[in-house]
Amino acid sequence: MSNTSPSTMWFIGYENNTSSPGPPARTLTKAQTLGYDLITTLLTTPVLHARVIETVCKYLSQSADDVGTDRPLPLISPLTPDDTELAPGDNNTGLVVRISPWLDLGSADPVIAHVSRQVFNLEVAYASFCGIQHVLVSGPVPDSDETQYARALLEALSVSAHLHFFVMLPMSGESEDAGSDEQHLAELARDSYTPNDRGAVLEDEEQDDVNADSSLNTWDLWDGIRTICDYNSRLSVALELPRKLPHQFIQDRWYSEPVRAVVLQRTTFIRNTAGFPVLAKPHQDYLNQLMRLRLPPCILLSDVGALELVANEATAVEPTPAEAAKHSVEKPTAHLQYIRHLQQNQPPLPTIERFGQGYQDYMQSPLQPLADNLESITYEVFEKDPIKYDWYERAIALALTDLAEALGADTEIVVAVVGAGRGPLVSKAILASKSSGVKARFWAVEKNPNAYVHLQRRNMTDPLWDKRVTVIKTDMRAWKGPVIDGQVRKVHILVSELLGSFADNELSPECLDGVQHVLDHEHGINIPQSYTAHATPIATPRLHTDLVGRAGADKWEIPYVVMLQQYDFLATLDDTRTPDVQLTWRFSHPVPPAVLAQAEARKGGSAEHGGAGGAVGGDGGNEHNSRYCKLKFICQSRGTCHGLAGYFETVLYTSKAGEKVELSTNPVTMEAKSKDMISWFPIFLPLKTPMHVPDGAEMEISMWRQSDDRKVWYEWVVEVYIRPAGKRVRVGMSELHSSRKNGCLM
Amino acid sequence: MSNTSPSTMWFIGYENNTSSPGPPARTLTKAQTLGYDLITTLLTTPVLHARVIETVCKYLSQSADDVGTDRPLPLISPLTPDDTELAPGDNNTGLVVRISPWLDLGSADPVIAHVSRQVFNLEVAYASFCGIQHVLVSGPVPDSDETQYARALLEALSVSAHLHFFVMLPMSGESEDAGSDEQHLAELARDSYTPNDRGAVLEDEEQDDVNADSSLNTWDLWDGIRTICDYNSRLSVALELPRKLPHQFIQDRWYSEPVRAVVLQRTTFIRNTAGFPVLAKPHQDYLNQLMRLRLPPCILLSDVGALELVANEATAVEPTPAEAAKHSVEKPTAHLQYIRHLQQNQPPLPTIERFGQGYQDYMQSPLQPLADNLESITYEVFEKDPIKYDWYERAIALALTDLAEALGADTEIVVAVVGAGRGPLVSKAILASKSSGVKARFWAVEKNPNAYVHLQRRNMTDPLWDKRVTVIKTDMRAWKGPVIDGQVRKVHILVSELLGSFADNELSPECLDGVQHVLDHEHGINIPQSYTAHATPIATPRLHTDLVGRAGADKWEIPYVVMLQQYDFLATLDDTRTPDVQLTWRFSHPVPPAVLAQAEARKGGSAEHGGAGGAVGGDGGNEHNSRYCKLKFICQSRGTCHGLAGYFETVLYTSKAGEKVELSTNPVTMEAKSKDMISWFPIFLPLKTPMHVPDGAEMEISMWRQSDDRKVWYEWVVEVYIRPAGKRVRVGMSELHSSRKNGCLM
Repeated sequence: MSNTSPSTMWFIGYENNTSSPGPPARTLTKAQTLGYDLITTLLTTPVLHARVIETVCKYLSQSADDVGTDRPLPLISPLTPDDTELAPGDNNTGLVVRISPWLDLGSADPVIAHVSRQVFNLEVAYASFCGIQHVLVSGPVPDSDETQYARALLEALSVSAHLHFFVMLPMSGESEDAGSDEQHLAELARDSYTPNDRGAVLEDEEQDDVNADSSLNTWDLWDGIRTICDYNSRLSVALELPRKLPHQFIQDRWYSEPVRAVVLQRTTFIRNTAGFPVLAKPHQDYLNQLMRLRLPPCILLSDVGALELVANEATAVEPTPAEAAKHSVEKPTAHLQYIRHLQQNQPPLPTIERFGQGYQDYMQSPLQPLADNLESITYEVFEKDPIKYDWYERAIALALTDLAEALGADTEIVVAVVGAGRGPLVSKAILASKSSGVKARFWAVEKNPNAYVHLQRRNMTDPLWDKRVTVIKTDMRAWKGPVIDGQVRKVHILVSELLGSFADNELSPECLDGVQHVLDHEHGINIPQSYTAHATPIATPRLHTDLVGRAGADKWEIPYVVMLQQYDFLATLDDTRTPDVQLTWRFSHPVPPAVLAQAEARKGGSAEHGGAGGAVGGDGGNEHNSRYCKLKFICQSRGTCHGLAGYFETVLYTSKAGEKVELSTNPVTMEAKSKDMISWFPIFLPLKTPMHVPDGAEMEISMWRQSDDRKVWYEWVVEVYIRPAGKRVRVGMSELHSSRKNGCLM
Repeated sequence: MSNTSPSTMWFIGYENNTSSPGPPARTLTKAQTLGYDLITTLLTTPVLHARVIETVCKYLSQSADDVGTDRPLPLISPLTPDDTELAPGDNNTGLVVRISPWLDLGSADPVIAHVSRQVFNLEVAYASFCGIQHVLVSGPVPDSDETQYARALLEALSVSAHLHFFVMLPMSGESEDAGSDEQHLAELARDSYTPNDRGAVLEDEEQDDVNADSSLNTWDLWDGIRTICDYNSRLSVALELPRKLPHQFIQDRWYSEPVRAVVLQRTTFIRNTAGFPVLAKPHQDYLNQLMRLRLPPCILLSDVGALELVANEATAVEPTPAEAAKHSVEKPTAHLQYIRHLQQNQPPLPTIERFGQGYQDYMQSPLQPLADNLESITYEVFEKDPIKYDWYERAIALALTDLAEALGADTEIVVAVVGAGRGPLVSKAILASKSSGVKARFWAVEKNPNAYVHLQRRNMTDPLWDKRVTVIKTDMRAWKGPVIDGQVRKVHILVSELLGSFADNELSPECLDGVQHVLDHEHGINIPQSYTAHATPIATPRLHTDLVGRAGADKWEIPYVVMLQQYDFLATLDDTRTPDVQLTWRFSHPVPPAVLAQAEARKGGSAEHGGAGGAVGGDGGNEHNSRYCKLKFICQSRGTCHGLAGYFETVLYTSKAGEKVELSTNPVTMEAKSKDMISWFPIFLPLKTPMHVPDGAEMEISMWRQSDDRKVWYEWVVEVYIRPAGKRVRVGMSELHSSRKNGCLM
């Protein structure tokens, strides 16, 4: 996990709106001299536009002469050198090529749709031939058929394996993009057009519907397009930021989508008191948020003046924004300079984001520390946590104090760290003993033979440990307990750090059950004392796209550990958008002895204690650690659910005086309970088929922690209900997802 | 396709409701002596019930004594010989074993749920051990958690690969099944039960919702259960028929589901004037409909009296129902005898059902007659159609008459049958010439070298043909045309039978385009003249289950030819349940010459005529045969959509006088246009993920016929919308399905 700042690289582009800018390579050089990284350029010239318009008009006027529908549709002949100034070249990676903005790929008029698709295919094929990597496509024309539009894009995605398509969409409402001044093909569509026998078309389509709710209307469009294109990783959004940002939930929604370009119009900027173009604070914040993504978008500045005007200033030293403002507020690079200024003045990253740099939205399979032995580097990463071990020290000190009071000050407290790893908790236990002034003896139990070497060496060399720690090489479940003066004693404080991202997913319950026999029956304390798992439904197109591209049938049924970044909460509690994260289940330690006794007796399906009739899918020995929950969430705003985010909370210790030491990765409580803790990323339980969630819908989530005598796994089902006229109606139900095949081995 | 009557085998079972019936094998023998085929039997005895009740009561009473929640959950020890009278045996295939009906697998009380699942697992495992094949399980207890219930069934399905589970459900409302008189575990659930830390449970669950709409409420339950069990083929319904059958749409819905047992209570029967128990006419009709399924359900007679009472009558000769009624209306086999009477008096099968016997719901890949050569037997099957060829004869006769009038009576009309196969249409053309008295000459064009042999022999030997037919061996697209007196002439009537189940899916448009150059420009007639494809959304769990069990990733993206039987229309027009079958697109012949000329010029991406910019995904040579449509359907009653059913209609010929000869497989028009035609089964376009369709929802279906220069394929997308408070809201959208990989080769 590197500490590279994400702000070092911002790609800023000049959006070339002139329809005859000359050869793109020359314009690009000019723009790069001025400090831009790239430019957008129209792929074709007005020559093509004129030819297409002429063809269509001629065809349609013949139609008026009653030639009938017996004619073939008009054809657009291939591109000629006059149609485009683009050519193959080394520098073409700096070009974002814009498809003719006057096309209407989803026109209800088959002539317009046919001609548009011909031009589109000609342009895409030529861009690919020229080695272009990024293609900018205008979003669907209003009232145009989004399905047809999406289908044309899907076809274009198959033209080459390296072309990326940016679909240009405003955050909500209508596009402010000027595109070009050329006549749009949609204007030629025949008013009197009625479907002929080339296919039936909806007659009573209510066009108002799409615009009825203007808030998420363009997101709806995008959601439909990418669904038809099956979440293709080469399809993303060029998001036009409006002058007034829409409501936070719309910002959050777009943040979760693959926004790979941000379009800033001249009109999006405001003037500061010095007359210099700047962005309003909300725009700055939103842009900064987008630019912190692992794959930050490029920024396209549009309509910010012609490059020609400033070309001769290029040799001058770049002034600071303040200087520039003094010199000339109308200077055409003023917008670029302001964005570079923002780039250089990025707010610092929160601890966890800095720590997790490069790991955002990267799905890993959870650790299996019980089945595998960890590497030293893995331990080292965990030991860097600035919070976790300090909190353990606080918890141990409180427990020592309580025990000293209960057992008398001269009792030597037995502290055992089970799963000691490289020993960080042993150090904290010794420090806690020192700070609390309570005498203690220390055991460190570790099954990993490699870590065992390290622990022994540390005991000999670490001045804090000072040869006072008894190091035991064993699986904790096989440990007979500490031996003092030849006698097996009980442990007073059993310290462990076995929690996973979803609390129990690295089998902490099973491990602690297995070692509970060493714990003092009357006074024994587990640290942690209890832990809970928590979940909430999320939209994460990023992770869904990633999984679509992976091989393997099981990929949808694995809980992944992932530093969630580009996602959106579907269920929020109020206007502050606090996510509704709900408790799924709880584990507490020590477990009642009768429960453990029954579990022990049932192992292997013992006939006297339940046998085959015991556990669901197992022999019953671990059934007391199975769990089930059914959670209900209300989703204010519609969206698409791609899975569940999972978190945990744990109470390390609650003192007799009522002081609680807690850790939390739950986004609702982590700030209060363990701010800046970095040891755990959330867990992600995917859905095989994304589920549509209408406005105000209820999501019902059933989750299981299942187990047999050999392993533990999770299962999840999601249902969506709405209440039109108060009646509860199911509109969606997922399959039952199960990680049984990829369960955690005991 | 055999003509075996489906009514020969009815399996009728005696439902044994007594809780202590003695050894099942003995009861079965007794029942079989009386004419039953099988019996249901409770798997366990009251001994087990008493033990379980005692265990639970004891546990719960301790709870009242404030023992706390620290105890392990109660365990049920394995079955003892006293718990069950079932034993492994050869005759066990005649037993349908009933799981204890007093279990509550989805209880909100974890004690009840835990105990229920233990007993359930013990019983299922023992049934499997004894070689039982069919297990009868009571549906979920009202207010019980259906998800937990379904999860328990899913686990049971994994116990053995041969156990089939029948879930007992009433058609709507509450079950009338008595089950047993024993105390139900659900009654023991603690009123004061609150969720403890073994998992969070919904607190404000509104139980009324489930019962709010009593019409499809039990179907909703079933829909949820089988979704969680992923349409397992070993999970089906034992449907309880109520005394008054519910509305037709509910009957239709259940008919489409895997009903593998029908439960008839004594109370479902009425008395006829002679006092004999009979079924009302609607019940008879529905039962007859169910019994005509390819996998007919067994019939379970419940509460129809003890076998003991009648055992000694068994040796007597079975009386006819009328005799029996005279003798003793209370005779306990009266119900059985009535059902046997129904069996023997089945209404005759409609022609198409008789013809398609054994092919119901059997999915085949469509023929590729252009790429493959058909076998003689395939031709023979098609030639058996009692309607199709007569209609062709009528159409040809009309065309001959019209042409004679246009060209003069002494013109010899040139008739060519292209794709002549074994020659049935040649015969019909000759007959049409005879009947109309119009002189004609005949050509038969066939590419299949094997059929060519047959055609030549027939020309020499068939007295009707009388050596008058010129047989040409060629792909019709390569035929230069008929040669008369050394000169190539034009064809007046071009007869073909190239239509597939979805009209154009066997490439009739492409073939007829390819041979159109032989047709007389001014007077040439194509028979058929035009054809249209039609589609409607359907629920077909049967086909979905079949596809779930198949291998291959492409299986969801193939249009299958299938004789649809066990399915339900989701969109109907009115209370008569007439399906809303909509037109997708149309083809007419001959095609305008300008269109064909353009197509020819565009083949291979010719630069002067569009080139790469032409077709979507191709070179443009066949783009005039691509189609697109967007259809909207209203679904009155909620359901689950598994795909689209496709049909076709064709106008063979419309005479100058306005007489139309048509064929149709569209269920709305086939009766009027071509009743009893058997040559085509419908087509089925599946959906990968079944889609929930709420009451009154709109389904929007986008379909494409796509093509490049080499093949033709279909694509389809389904969207679901609702209108709460008038606003249109999308609640579901399928992926884009495409048969591109399995397209039809040109």
